[in-house]
Amino acid sequence: MKFCPSCGAAVTRRIPPGDSLPRFVCDECGDIHYQNPKLVVGTIPEWEGRVLLCRRAIEPRYGYWTLPAGFMENGESAGEAALRETLEEAGARAELIAPYSIISVPAVNQVHLFYRARLLDLEFRPGAESLEVALREEKDIPWKEIAFRTVGLTLRRWCADRARGEFGFFAEDLK
Amino acid sequence: MKFCPSCGAAVTRRIPPGDSLPRFVCDECGDIHYQNPKLVVGTIPEWEGRVLLCRRAIEPRYGYWTLPAGFMENGESAGEAALRETLEEAGARAELIAPYSIISVPAVNQVHLFYRARLLDLEFRPGAESLEVALREEKDIPWKEIAFRTVGLTLRRWCADRARGEFGFFAEDLK
Repeated sequence: MKFCPSCGAAVTRRIPPGDSLPRFVCDECGDIHYQNPKLVVGTIPEWEGRVLLCRRAIEPRYGYWTLPAGFMENGESAGEAALRETLEEAGARAELIAPYSIISVPAVNQVHLFYRARLLDLEFRPGAESLEVALREEKDIPWKEIAFRTVGLTLRRWCADRARGEFGFFAEDLK
Repeated sequence: MKFCPSCGAAVTRRIPPGDSLPRFVCDECGDIHYQNPKLVVGTIPEWEGRVLLCRRAIEPRYGYWTLPAGFMENGESAGEAALRETLEEAGARAELIAPYSIISVPAVNQVHLFYRARLLDLEFRPGAESLEVALREEKDIPWKEIAFRTVGLTLRRWCADRARGEFGFFAEDLK
């Protein structure tokens, strides 16, 4: 950030009075512009023990496999965002079962949140950001071609929980 | 947002090519400025069945009671943010037990995340944003003076879970 979004003057980076961290501050209009982590929200879409994966048609990680997920938008709930991304990326209609994982990735200022979800039918098809969409058995998950560490971690825990017949909720940090 | 934070030119609000929602777009430098929900993260600090509450010294809801919580910062994990807010607002050192609730508040573009936490000692004291800090039994929780609906909902569920001797994790939307 170089210019004030409110008035267009140049901003400086300094610690405002009463604060403890440097912020972008406008000396012209006085506005303080905070920057905070973003939520990436998605689903683990299930169908008879299989999981729906998408192969990415965009960077980063073009051609790698992922769970349907994306940035939560203003005006929606986390659950709505998860189902919207599932529809957009996989063309898949689903219903939420429960939140399953929340993983902080401070290096990129993101928090990833995944919900278990039940596919409502098998009418899925790749959206604009996916090359293909496929229902995979655990043994057919392409572990070496998973796009993001948060997705790999979530899928491994999901497989382990499925094996023991009980799904918990877990929180992790990826440093 | 009226001006581009990157180049200082005026921005317009329109749907970029390939997108489906209006964004602040700079026609001068081409930058698209996304706006996304913010995470508010806090703890339910426990000590021998009691819970630590803070009375707010700032607006909004000056004088009302809350759990220690605040905006997650870039560069930290959600758990780190929860413990930092607990230290800042209540002067309390604690350790996380488990995530407990995630509540979307789309009307204000926020997601509130609370962790159960165990106080490490009784050396708490009000921080700059608190008038007082107190350990409360369930029967002494000031239900009519709770600052935020997400805090009231989390505390009610925590009391109910404590009564049945089992703490789950829950997700809710507040519309």
